[in-house]
Amino acid sequence: MALKARALYDFNSENPGEISMRENEIVTLYSERDIEGWLEGANSKGDRGLFPASYVEIVKSDTASTAAVVNHNNSSSTSGNALQGSLYANVPDAPYQSPPSKVKNFPSPGYPGFSPPAQHPQPPGVFPENSQGSEDDWYDDWDDSSTVADEAPTGLYREFDANGPSIYTVSMPRGGPAQQQTAKSSATVGKNLNRFSTFVKSGGEAFVLGEAAGVLKDWDQIFVVMGQYGPQWQENPYPFACTIDDPTKQTKFKGMKSYISYKLTPTHTQTQVNRRYKHFDWLYARLVEKFPVISVPHIPEKQATGRFEEDFISKRRKGLIWWMNHMTSHPVLSKCDVFQHFVTCNSADEKAWKQGKRKAEKDEMVGANFFLTISTMAAPLDLQEVESKIDGFKTFTKRMDEGSMQLNATVSEFARKQISGFKKEYQRVGQSFKFLSQAFEMDQQPYSAGLNQAISITGDAYEAIGDYFAEQPSKDLDPIMDLLALYQGHLANYPDIIHVQKGALTKVKESQKHVEEAKMEASQAEGIKERCNVISIATMAEIQHFHQIRVRDFKAQMQQYLREQIGFFQKITGKLEEALQKYDNA
Amino acid sequence: MALKARALYDFNSENPGEISMRENEIVTLYSERDIEGWLEGANSKGDRGLFPASYVEIVKSDTASTAAVVNHNNSSSTSGNALQGSLYANVPDAPYQSPPSKVKNFPSPGYPGFSPPAQHPQPPGVFPENSQGSEDDWYDDWDDSSTVADEAPTGLYREFDANGPSIYTVSMPRGGPAQQQTAKSSATVGKNLNRFSTFVKSGGEAFVLGEAAGVLKDWDQIFVVMGQYGPQWQENPYPFACTIDDPTKQTKFKGMKSYISYKLTPTHTQTQVNRRYKHFDWLYARLVEKFPVISVPHIPEKQATGRFEEDFISKRRKGLIWWMNHMTSHPVLSKCDVFQHFVTCNSADEKAWKQGKRKAEKDEMVGANFFLTISTMAAPLDLQEVESKIDGFKTFTKRMDEGSMQLNATVSEFARKQISGFKKEYQRVGQSFKFLSQAFEMDQQPYSAGLNQAISITGDAYEAIGDYFAEQPSKDLDPIMDLLALYQGHLANYPDIIHVQKGALTKVKESQKHVEEAKMEASQAEGIKERCNVISIATMAEIQHFHQIRVRDFKAQMQQYLREQIGFFQKITGKLEEALQKYDNA
Repeated sequence: MALKARALYDFNSENPGEISMRENEIVTLYSERDIEGWLEGANSKGDRGLFPASYVEIVKSDTASTAAVVNHNNSSSTSGNALQGSLYANVPDAPYQSPPSKVKNFPSPGYPGFSPPAQHPQPPGVFPENSQGSEDDWYDDWDDSSTVADEAPTGLYREFDANGPSIYTVSMPRGGPAQQQTAKSSATVGKNLNRFSTFVKSGGEAFVLGEAAGVLKDWDQIFVVMGQYGPQWQENPYPFACTIDDPTKQTKFKGMKSYISYKLTPTHTQTQVNRRYKHFDWLYARLVEKFPVISVPHIPEKQATGRFEEDFISKRRKGLIWWMNHMTSHPVLSKCDVFQHFVTCNSADEKAWKQGKRKAEKDEMVGANFFLTISTMAAPLDLQEVESKIDGFKTFTKRMDEGSMQLNATVSEFARKQISGFKKEYQRVGQSFKFLSQAFEMDQQPYSAGLNQAISITGDAYEAIGDYFAEQPSKDLDPIMDLLALYQGHLANYPDIIHVQKGALTKVKESQKHVEEAKMEASQAEGIKERCNVISIATMAEIQHFHQIRVRDFKAQMQQYLREQIGFFQKITGKLEEALQKYDNA
Repeated sequence: MALKARALYDFNSENPGEISMRENEIVTLYSERDIEGWLEGANSKGDRGLFPASYVEIVKSDTASTAAVVNHNNSSSTSGNALQGSLYANVPDAPYQSPPSKVKNFPSPGYPGFSPPAQHPQPPGVFPENSQGSEDDWYDDWDDSSTVADEAPTGLYREFDANGPSIYTVSMPRGGPAQQQTAKSSATVGKNLNRFSTFVKSGGEAFVLGEAAGVLKDWDQIFVVMGQYGPQWQENPYPFACTIDDPTKQTKFKGMKSYISYKLTPTHTQTQVNRRYKHFDWLYARLVEKFPVISVPHIPEKQATGRFEEDFISKRRKGLIWWMNHMTSHPVLSKCDVFQHFVTCNSADEKAWKQGKRKAEKDEMVGANFFLTISTMAAPLDLQEVESKIDGFKTFTKRMDEGSMQLNATVSEFARKQISGFKKEYQRVGQSFKFLSQAFEMDQQPYSAGLNQAISITGDAYEAIGDYFAEQPSKDLDPIMDLLALYQGHLANYPDIIHVQKGALTKVKESQKHVEEAKMEASQAEGIKERCNVISIATMAEIQHFHQIRVRDFKAQMQQYLREQIGFFQKITGKLEEALQKYDNA
């Protein structure tokens, strides 16, 4: 039997060993088993090589039951209907197949400065046979590479309608206990059959349906308490911060390969550890996998070229500092094992590092099981009230996103104008004053020397002011753009988080209907409702945390911005006062 | 005999009763006598009407001696050679025929803000028969009209070479005793036969040749003293200033005609007089005629439309204030009868006003005779040194003119940018802050209200700063442009002044050559040299005065500019500090 797969998106080979393919192209697979997110095969042209596993769906043409299209609205009647695999070609416009660029309501899938996880993973090496996922990725060539297979691009701000048409396809196993459990489940309440649904992927569905199972250890417990403004994460009892300093270029292979190493010093250990961008990237992937309803701050975006240029390094470091600040500020993220390992483990102790890394990658309390770790003494929430609050928050995030986008565009243009136009105007004025003073110097009149010099100095002052304008944006506008980039990253996370909560709520409604129709026992529906409450409480706590750090960050940043601006205008005033004094004795 | 005239320049009829004509077109005259600078006749198309007398030269075809082309370099041999009037058509490129727009080294014949006298006078009425130069011009229709026929356009910064080819033509009598005297002169030293030469027109030539004659009264005497930096005008022993206030709209003919009246109050009489723009214009013409080597400040330029708009009135008033300041600062101009009459005579006393007006118009001590009024105890100047200093000053004026032009262009553009671009940028930033704060207001979190309000106020502050930028140019850049306009007017005067002095110097050289060739008596040459010394001393005194007020004015204006700019940036700082405080309790 020939193993085939169909390309869900265009993929353009960017590195040796990769092969390109077009959307809907049928490729031949050599093995169903992916290696760190990559599959090996041949495209229709016969090119042999690697491509991202998440870009294809496997088509097994000899067994009809493994390829089916199901309308979820009629799931009870049509579920299990077998359709030919060739039918996929007829549904190219199904929502999950839209590449990110076609997503509406959201101009760009990525945000300047911060990026969602890689759209496709980098190949582990030229040929997968040679690199069975080397653990020692500290020395990998590609500084920005990700070794974790990632989800297919999801449309941000598309309609989060859990009841929309969904498509069940057999895709290659993509890991994650939740999905594996889903495969063998036979619950009465219909499962959301869209494998690309965040509700499914995150493990939210599995948890709600009572399918999550893990050994809960005490130290894994995450507490949600009832605060003044509703559910909130219990504060980290051992808060700490972490500095990121001295990005330095390191080399390996006798200088043939280079990367940048950052020195991290957490306040609670006061011990410096060295980390590369790829470690941040690895950590980020772990966190996203583990925490379905927590907005993990995006790490600064990847960049293939100019990675060793000073400006880029400085900008990335600033981005990492912002990221670290949000990590250490988060009661759940800051405490979690994988992050603690990241900020405390001495990477020179290779054994300890690898051990922690392996442990994190084998963590069972991720996805669906994460919800098992949530403990709360709070009374169950009114789900209708939750729904209304979530809707309000959804509106808020849209508006904040629009506001951030506009401010970002304005501020970016303002910076550009100051660097170019404003500088030019002030410098032209300065030059014209100096040109006039040069003309005046030809007047042969001794009594005008003082004036001529004063005008010349005024010219110098205006040239300096031009420079001030050009230098200022990096001091006050860039930090605002950094802040906005980080928050735009969070805002990009929330559709998925909201989706998970909404999915859970839909299950509750379904189960209540089933109970009314006597298709489900009340106790089972009660369990669903309780678990939905857990998801809701966690979501509300995360939203509360978001608002609190948002107010904290925007307040601090606006204050810093205004202080910088005040200092800037005072500096100009000082320069002009200096020039004015020159006229006193002129 | 048909009286004919040839058009020296294109003239386009702009008002009823005027007729158009092209350069070199032959027109028929009804009378040789001009009415307030206008002649009546018919053009080649047969249109009958008025045209400016200064735009044509009269061609008397029946007498050859009245139309001649003479090369001044060979004047002793070819002077008086008769040539046909038709020959004029062969010399269209002679310098005096170039309309101002063709003049090189000077981009524009006029300066923004200040204008030389009208290129052609306004017709006194639709038909000249009806208006024999009414004395009561206070009530004339045309507020900006000039009742004085003016010189043909002269090229600014053309080469002041008194030895260049010049053309003698019989033009209609244009008044002025100097020219009339020249006509009957028979001095041995050849006269500059170019009627358009400033040296001739100003009376400089007539004076140097000893042809000026007038009854010198004591009070007419103008003293040049030897100061620290060379010859200088004796200070006005009764210095005064004069304010110009309350431009008010007056009407006449039962409201059918309107004009603006300004209230002038000189400090030495403390008595207010009312003056219209046309009075300034009349005075200006008197002063230009009277003082050949004094740079009479230009009055603000004429404007046919929008004369009653507030902006225009305010701008004109500012221009008149600058003009008045330069008039009262000038030791010679401030003292002279016609100016004193202008600032002191109550125009309500119509008889006194008319009397002074008539007296000024009949003043004999103008042009050539002006030089008779100059007294100096200073030793004769070294003419070679004078020549070198004048050359240095000529270079200076060119450089200052370039510098002023560039600064004016820069400042004008800078003002435009502040009013449009700068304002827009700051306001966009303000709007974006406000847009974000509006989004934040949807967060349902009571603890963020303070921040939301502070961001909104920051937005307001940036919108206000945008307005500050737009308002600022009228406070600091406009005054600089006003200053530059006034000085560009002076710079436009100096070519003619230098021309007069150079012409005198040339006469000295010629006379010395004649003495060597025994064609002239030494005593006559000595007289020419003495008179050239008077012109030189007056020119040097005027240059000295120019430098002194220039240093005074530019120093004061630069100081005012810098103080305004400092105040401006302090105002911005204050606004930002206000906004910053709002975050204290946010």
